[in-house]
Amino acid sequence: MTNSSERPRIRLKPKANARGLRHGFPWVYANDIVTDRRTRKIEAGALAVLEDDKRAPIALVAVNPASKIMCRVLDRDIGTQLTADWFETRLRHALEMRENLFDAPYFRLIHAEADGFPGVIIDRFGDACVIQPNAAWAEAHLDALTDALVKVTGVSTVLKNASGRTRGLEGLDDLSLALRGTAPEAPLPVPMNRATYMADLTGGQKTGLFYDQRPNHAFAAKLVRPGARVLDVFSHVGGFGLAMLAGGAAHAVSVDGSAAALELAAKGAEVSGFADRFQTRQGDAFDVLAKLGEEGAEFDVVICDPPAFAPSKQALDAGLRAYERIARLAAPLVKPGGYLGLCSCSHAADLGRFRDASSRGIGRAGRRAQLIHTGFAGPDHPQLPQLAESGYLKAVFYRL
Amino acid sequence: MTNSSERPRIRLKPKANARGLRHGFPWVYANDIVTDRRTRKIEAGALAVLEDDKRAPIALVAVNPASKIMCRVLDRDIGTQLTADWFETRLRHALEMRENLFDAPYFRLIHAEADGFPGVIIDRFGDACVIQPNAAWAEAHLDALTDALVKVTGVSTVLKNASGRTRGLEGLDDLSLALRGTAPEAPLPVPMNRATYMADLTGGQKTGLFYDQRPNHAFAAKLVRPGARVLDVFSHVGGFGLAMLAGGAAHAVSVDGSAAALELAAKGAEVSGFADRFQTRQGDAFDVLAKLGEEGAEFDVVICDPPAFAPSKQALDAGLRAYERIARLAAPLVKPGGYLGLCSCSHAADLGRFRDASSRGIGRAGRRAQLIHTGFAGPDHPQLPQLAESGYLKAVFYRL
Repeated sequence: MTNSSERPRIRLKPKANARGLRHGFPWVYANDIVTDRRTRKIEAGALAVLEDDKRAPIALVAVNPASKIMCRVLDRDIGTQLTADWFETRLRHALEMRENLFDAPYFRLIHAEADGFPGVIIDRFGDACVIQPNAAWAEAHLDALTDALVKVTGVSTVLKNASGRTRGLEGLDDLSLALRGTAPEAPLPVPMNRATYMADLTGGQKTGLFYDQRPNHAFAAKLVRPGARVLDVFSHVGGFGLAMLAGGAAHAVSVDGSAAALELAAKGAEVSGFADRFQTRQGDAFDVLAKLGEEGAEFDVVICDPPAFAPSKQALDAGLRAYERIARLAAPLVKPGGYLGLCSCSHAADLGRFRDASSRGIGRAGRRAQLIHTGFAGPDHPQLPQLAESGYLKAVFYRL
Repeated sequence: MTNSSERPRIRLKPKANARGLRHGFPWVYANDIVTDRRTRKIEAGALAVLEDDKRAPIALVAVNPASKIMCRVLDRDIGTQLTADWFETRLRHALEMRENLFDAPYFRLIHAEADGFPGVIIDRFGDACVIQPNAAWAEAHLDALTDALVKVTGVSTVLKNASGRTRGLEGLDDLSLALRGTAPEAPLPVPMNRATYMADLTGGQKTGLFYDQRPNHAFAAKLVRPGARVLDVFSHVGGFGLAMLAGGAAHAVSVDGSAAALELAAKGAEVSGFADRFQTRQGDAFDVLAKLGEEGAEFDVVICDPPAFAPSKQALDAGLRAYERIARLAAPLVKPGGYLGLCSCSHAADLGRFRDASSRGIGRAGRRAQLIHTGFAGPDHPQLPQLAESGYLKAVFYRL
């Protein structure tokens, strides 16, 4: 145990926003900190006491001198010890909300800062959890976190996924492995919105499945009329397509660039009992959209859920042009009176900009539209109010 | 029938945004129009051809020289006649979406501009519809609209509600009456989110019930754990409270200033079979919140859905302070780990400002929060993409 008086101290510069930190802002950037020989020597992942410029303590923080986000607030109590109880209490608090909101143990259990675990993602897949410890402090405490996770959830398998891009920024390795139990050899079935998805926990994108789109999948499923034909572009493992089939669609086409993702989508359709109503089409989404347009194809519902076109401020203009192009190519494929759902997971493109680019694309395709619904990530992806502007996932649904 | 060449012409000034109008913007303000003796003589509610400053036609518009919004775009085709078929086609298109999305005929059928009927609201309550013809053109064509409505929906009762504030701006009377059938003498039962609400179609607020909150009611209902005690402030006829009881709440308290609204809420609870779990408290919401705080009352879920505190830009600052105060008074009433839902129906307070005011109030109450969900009006309240910024209804849900 470390006494708080023995912990290293990190001092803010006078210009830093100490008030914001006291009110819940979770990060301290390196250039807001008085750096001397001592602070530079703090080990990545070590705990320290953050002080304002008058040396009054603010919070217990995790330090990474190698990262631009040099401190992440861990606890308001500067004397806190990261005991088993500390980990278990936070995990139990997070689990309680998910169990309250979801019928089955398939959800994002820990969504980083907002759940009190800075830089840590944990997704639950029934009896297995996948951890992304994307900050040095979490890597340093991975064993305690894993023990607590097993104790609180009762899962028998815990996998570490080290593919997160931010691990590099934190100076961490990219070695994924099984922390408890053994990595499943086959993809796992995941029930969601009355469909079954196949999640590859070791070889897939991120933790194997995107839980964030769940409420938007559910909304798309409600748009489906009996007999409807639907198109799901950038489908990954079948997100919107399988949900719409479960909602009663007569036929769904999933388009993705990844053969592996489409194979999982097809497997999901089979397990869900939709195999005869499901079709995949591999290829570049822009090309496939253009080709379907030339073929005069028409669908009752078209959804496009592309990867982040505007991942950074620098990429914003190009990203918005790409979103507009998607809308312009997709709108002609929607029957009159049908629906078009467009998604963005770009931090840099806020809701207003993304919606405007989408509306412009629909207009350029010569179509008129009503905006009927705007959705975000599900409640298992909470946000800190102090970071609410950064809500990355947006879905806008139009009727044409 | 009027030939388009015989219709009056309205010319835009060169500075007006003709391009925006061609791309779907629905309004022309009086100061963008070349006004002469002839235009001033156009009757309120008459149709005219809108032209750009080069005299090229843009659209068929409804004119009201007495209104700041002097023209409302009715149709892209300047030769269009407002025949029975014109009304029926638009109503059928709107009905199709609602029937697709809702199990029972209780919804907003026409949401003004976005449904192709500028200034017109139509809410459906089973076998009855309530029309708010809040623009002169609609008043002038009310008989044709009513005939088409009866034909398309098959309802036997159509009521005109003339209480809308905007009717005054259009120079219209405030005489409500039954256009077809007879006004129901008792409040009507309305099924929504597995509860039954009582709607007073003739003596209540607006058309008698607010359908716009339906998806937010549904989200609140999902937050409820078995045994939960919930508080619904500014409850009107029981919106959130009855939905949460249907979601399994053990007990709900509804607070409102209106005894008539609370009587309807109590009646709804009775009809829904929740009477023994439901309580009302009449009074000023700020006072009741403060009083409950003094009493040390605690609830698992607290929802506040106040009237528009910031109805105009002038009222924005005072409105945001009121939203902050609501959050500050409500947060202490939420148990640790419980939920707080805050709503705004103010046009002037956009989502970011409203959310910041709410988060600030929670912080001032000394509580930490996660933002878990943001909701808007339901899909039976579509928006024109060109007016999407004006989305009035916002609901933010926090876990404390």
